[in-house]
This record gives sequence, structure tokens and C-alpha cells, in this order.
Amino acid sequence: VSRFHLSLNQITLNRLSVAEVVQACHDGGIRSIGLWREKVAETGREQSARLIADADLTVSSLCRGGFFNSRGAFLDNRRAVDDAAALGAPVLVLVCGGLPDGTRDLDLARARVAAGLEDLVPYAAKRGVRLGIEPLHPMFCSDRSVVCTLGQALDLAERFPPEQVGVVVDVYHVWWDPRLDQDLSRAHGRIAGFHINDWMVPLPEGALLGRGLPGTGCIDLPRIMSAVARAGYEGAVEVEVMNERVWEAPVEETIGTLTTFFDGLEQEAGDGPTAAAAST
Amino acid sequence: VSRFHLSLNQITLNRLSVAEVVQACHDGGIRSIGLWREKVAETGREQSARLIADADLTVSSLCRGGFFNSRGAFLDNRRAVDDAAALGAPVLVLVCGGLPDGTRDLDLARARVAAGLEDLVPYAAKRGVRLGIEPLHPMFCSDRSVVCTLGQALDLAERFPPEQVGVVVDVYHVWWDPRLDQDLSRAHGRIAGFHINDWMVPLPEGALLGRGLPGTGCIDLPRIMSAVARAGYEGAVEVEVMNERVWEAPVEETIGTLTTFFDGLEQEAGDGPTAAAAST
Repeated sequence: VSRFHLSLNQITLNRLSVAEVVQACHDGGIRSIGLWREKVAETGREQSARLIADADLTVSSLCRGGFFNSRGAFLDNRRAVDDAAALGAPVLVLVCGGLPDGTRDLDLARARVAAGLEDLVPYAAKRGVRLGIEPLHPMFCSDRSVVCTLGQALDLAERFPPEQVGVVVDVYHVWWDPRLDQDLSRAHGRIAGFHINDWMVPLPEGALLGRGLPGTGCIDLPRIMSAVARAGYEGAVEVEVMNERVWEAPVEETIGTLTTFFDGLEQEAGDGPTAAAAST
Repeated sequence: VSRFHLSLNQITLNRLSVAEVVQACHDGGIRSIGLWREKVAETGREQSARLIADADLTVSSLCRGGFFNSRGAFLDNRRAVDDAAALGAPVLVLVCGGLPDGTRDLDLARARVAAGLEDLVPYAAKRGVRLGIEPLHPMFCSDRSVVCTLGQALDLAERFPPEQVGVVVDVYHVWWDPRLDQDLSRAHGRIAGFHINDWMVPLPEGALLGRGLPGTGCIDLPRIMSAVARAGYEGAVEVEVMNERVWEAPVEETIGTLTTFFDGLEQEAGDGPTAAAAST
């Protein structure tokens, strides 16, 4: 059996409700889904959990907690853990937050992230939810995450047992990093999620919605996926794409593109022979 | 005497010709200028050199060579060194270039940068021009520079004597880096230029023209300037801002803002007492 399987992060089909994206996964043969709290809240948590269970999908992760420098983070992160537990999400993805408004003290902001994390870990561990620290691309340092590199995320995660705190590797955020290979080796047993998409230029205004579907940009996905596999990760490969044009495209077309691409990626990443054998 | 002085990188006043920007520096009491080859070519190299000499300005740097993965780089970089020598620029700033079009092999692109640099160093050293490797923000990795961190730039520079190859520290590109402090220490004697500006959100489309005037964003400039001073750097602090709104603003207003800001920055960075004593 292949050690990887495709998961659809629901933001890739951001116009759809939970019910609609569950249907799209079912129709497209995708067996796993990454959820967003905002979308789940629209449908209701219990109803979402029921829709997912009825379609026999597994949940790969819940996005997101974190933003440790924001007002209300303390309580909101506890609610995020509760949501993850209720939805059967094994991992709560943490986007750690940027500089507090009007401040310039990166060291302080980073220290507050560490303190916020330390506070949250016991609560999550008790509920069986693993926290996954996602380093964000440095272009988001000021407003979304002062944790900019995999190395930083590991520095934070390694203070806790790996089953309690891991890291989420999103190729969009880390592909450029000259230390990526060594930090992926270091991350052995710590990788709590693997997200794929692609880097495209020019960036759109605001930079957030500039990702491409995997395979459409310049990221060497087979290479990174192989390194992630060597780091002992197996399981969901979540496609997470935030892009207006993808959101406007027909759903079946997007799903078809993704499943076809993923089959090829598994082969290229060197996971192919086993997967092919298992599918015959 | 203060160990720093203000220099105006001419792209900050991109609408002006060399003659006009020389006049603006003279009128505003700025004694140093950073040049761009494209602007110099419009006026002519000898004429530009004469205008600068007549106004008694010093040249802090010439932008730029590099782009080692582009066709024509071999010859163009030699012309860039010739330009720097003719203009009396002590440093040629190198922007190393992104991935070759349609490729995804970062390791190969980086190896080609190293090879291109190795080829260029003897030519530049013979002509008394120091090469300054400028790491660019990782958001420019695909299209402008596969050299994304100060650490990488130092890895490249350290293969050569410091008087031949240094690094250019632009706060916009490095401010987010969790390894900045340690890499600035490591850069002792290697800093060939120091550029200031500021990080603002949201990024504009294409990201290139999103910089703010120093002091208008979230970069802790006094802190970084102190670290640069501890790394043994003295000399020009170049203001390099690429921003449509700054280009549209009245020139005298921009110059006034910069000189006032710089005076305060010197004080805050701990260089103030000496500077104040010298100016009384």
C-alpha cells in the first residue's frame, strides 16, 4: 500500500459548504478532508461531523488555532482544540500570529508564541489532539506568523513529546529554504501534516491568494515529498490552495486535476511501485 | 564623528534623472548616492560621473550585477564591474537571479550562482571593485534571487577575501530571519552595504514596489543598525525604496523626511552621542 493518500483541504473549494465539499470528495474518490473552523461553524459542528462520517471520510486536520498575540487567543485556542476533538481531527494546525499591531519587537512576539503554546499543549494533549505548528512564508511574518522557518517550528515543537506537538510542512511556505533538507531530517517523527500547492509569480495584491494548484508552479514537489517520506511521515497529503481562479473553476475539473496529479506525484516521489502494485 | 552617513539610492527618486537626483542630494544636504546602471546609461556614464564629481558627492554603490542564470550574464557582469570602476563605486551590488525559466532545480540554480560568482571575482578584484552579494527576501526566490538569506550570502562570500566579496544587508530582505543576529555577527568585516526602508502590508501586486520609507513600517531599524555597527560596518546607510507613492511625492518632502528620520535613527541606534558632539 502507498504510504501517502490524497486529502482535500476544504479551502481549495472555498465556495462550497461542508456538505458540498463532502459530496465533491465522495464523487471524486478522495477519502480524506482537511477542515476549516469557519466553514464548519457555518454548517454546525455536529452536523459537519455527521456529514463526514456518513460519507466515510477521514479528517486529516483542522485549520486553525494559534495567533497567540491576538486578544482572545487563550480561550479561542481551547475552543479550536474542542472542535478538533469533536470532529475527529488528529491535528490542529497552528498559525502562530504576527507582530502585535503597532509593535516591532520580533523577539517579544516570538517569546509570546512560545508561552502561548506552552499553555495550550496540556489542554490539547488531554483531549488527544496533536498540535501542528505551521511555519509560514517569511512574507507573512508581520501579519500572520512570526514563525517563518521549519527550523523555528522545530525549536518550538521539540520542547514537547512528538505525539503532542508536531510541525506542518506546507511546501508553499518552506520550498525556498536553504536549510530545508536538514530541517526535514531533523523533523523525523515530528511531521504532523504535509500540504501541497505551488508557487507562482507574480504574487497578487496581499499575497495570500497567490498559490497555484500543485504542478502549476516552480516547486519541486517530488523532491520535497521524498524528503518528507524519509522523515518518517505517512498519511495525508493535503492539497491546500487559496486562489480566486481555482475557486471560480468547475469543481469536478479541479478534483480531476488533483487526483490525476497526485497519482503522478506518488510515482515520481518514488512511492509509485508499491502504490501501483496495491491498486492492481 | 558618526560612523554612519546617509546615502540616497537613486531608485528612491526613480522619476529623476541622474542630474536631477544629484541636485536633490545637494539641496538636501545628502553627501552620498547609490546608483543604478539603467539610470546612469540614460545620462551616459562619463556625464554621470562628472555630475557626481562636480556636486562633490561620493558614490556608495552601483546596482546591480548578478542574475547568474540569465543568458548574457557573463559579459553583462563584466560591463557592470567596468561601470562601477568608472563611476568610483566601491561596491557592485549583486542580485543573484532566480530559477531559470521553466525549471525547478534550486540546488542547480544555486550551484550556477556560485560558479558565476567564482568567474567574476578575479575580474572585479583586478579593477578594485568589491562585489556585494545581496540576499533577497524569500518571496523573490523564484524570479530574482535563489540566495534568500544572509547565511547563504555568507556561505558564498566566505570563499573569497573580504575585500573582494562582501554582503549587502537590506533590512527589507532580512528583517524576519530568526538567524539574523548570529549571521550579522558572522558577517563581521564582510558587510559591503547597508540598505534601509520598511516592511508594509498589504503587499502590492508583484510585491516588488511594496517598500515603505524607513520608519513607516514594522522593521526595528535601530536594533538592526546597532547589530550592523557591532559587525564592524561603517559608512553609507543607503535608503532604497521602490514605491509608486514615494515616486509620486514631492522630492523635497521625501528628502526632508529621510534626513530627519536618519538623524533620529543614529541617536536611537546608539550612535547618537558622538554624532551629536561632532555636529555642535
